[in-house]
Amino acid sequence: MPRFTHPRLEDVPLDLALHALADPNRLGMVARLASTEGLSCSDAAPCEAIPKSTLSNHLKLLRAAGLIETAQAGREMINTLRRDEFDRRFPGLLDAVLANTSS
Amino acid sequence: MPRFTHPRLEDVPLDLALHALADPNRLGMVARLASTEGLSCSDAAPCEAIPKSTLSNHLKLLRAAGLIETAQAGREMINTLRRDEFDRRFPGLLDAVLANTSS
Repeated sequence: MPRFTHPRLEDVPLDLALHALADPNRLGMVARLASTEGLSCSDAAPCEAIPKSTLSNHLKLLRAAGLIETAQAGREMINTLRRDEFDRRFPGLLDAVLANTSS
Repeated sequence: MPRFTHPRLEDVPLDLALHALADPNRLGMVARLASTEGLSCSDAAPCEAIPKSTLSNHLKLLRAAGLIETAQAGREMINTLRRDEFDRRFPGLLDAVLANTSS
C-alpha cells in the first residue's frame, strides 16, 4: 500500500510553491481540486490519455509544494487541496493564481 | 548594440509567468526592481559573483514572461519592471508573490 509524505507548510519555500504551479496541467488539477472535496488520482488527471508515471509526477510535485494531500480512502487514494494551510503560509497567493487560471 | 524583444502581455500564459517567478534569484531581482525606477544588468544581479551568462539567462526569462523591459540608456542597458502591464494581465498576482517573498 503506497504511503506518501507531506511537508510541513513552513518548510515549503515560495519558489517551490510557484514551481509546482508553473505548469498548465498542474494548474488545471489545482483549480479542479479547489472546487471539490477530493479527487481520486485518475479523476484528478488533466486528461484521460496521460501516462500514469506523468500523472504520478505531477501529484508528487503538488504534494512536495504542500498544495495537496494524498490519503487512502477505502480502496482509493484521494487527493485534497491543503487550502487553509497553504493560505496561511502564502496569504493571497493561491487566490491570485486561481483567479488568473482562465486568463 | 544588443536589441531585446519584449512580448505583448496578452501573449504571456500564466504558467510562463509563474515559471519566471519560480526561482529565488529571479524573485529577488523582481522584488528589487519593484522598489526602483530601473537597474542596470549588473545592479539587477542577485549577487556579484554570478556568471554573466547566468545573469543574462535570468533576465531573458523575466523578459519572456513580460515582467521586465530592457532598454538602452546611454552606455548602459536599464531594466525596469513592466508593473502596470503585468498587473493588468494578471491582476493581484505580482502583489501576492511580492508580499510572500520574505516568508
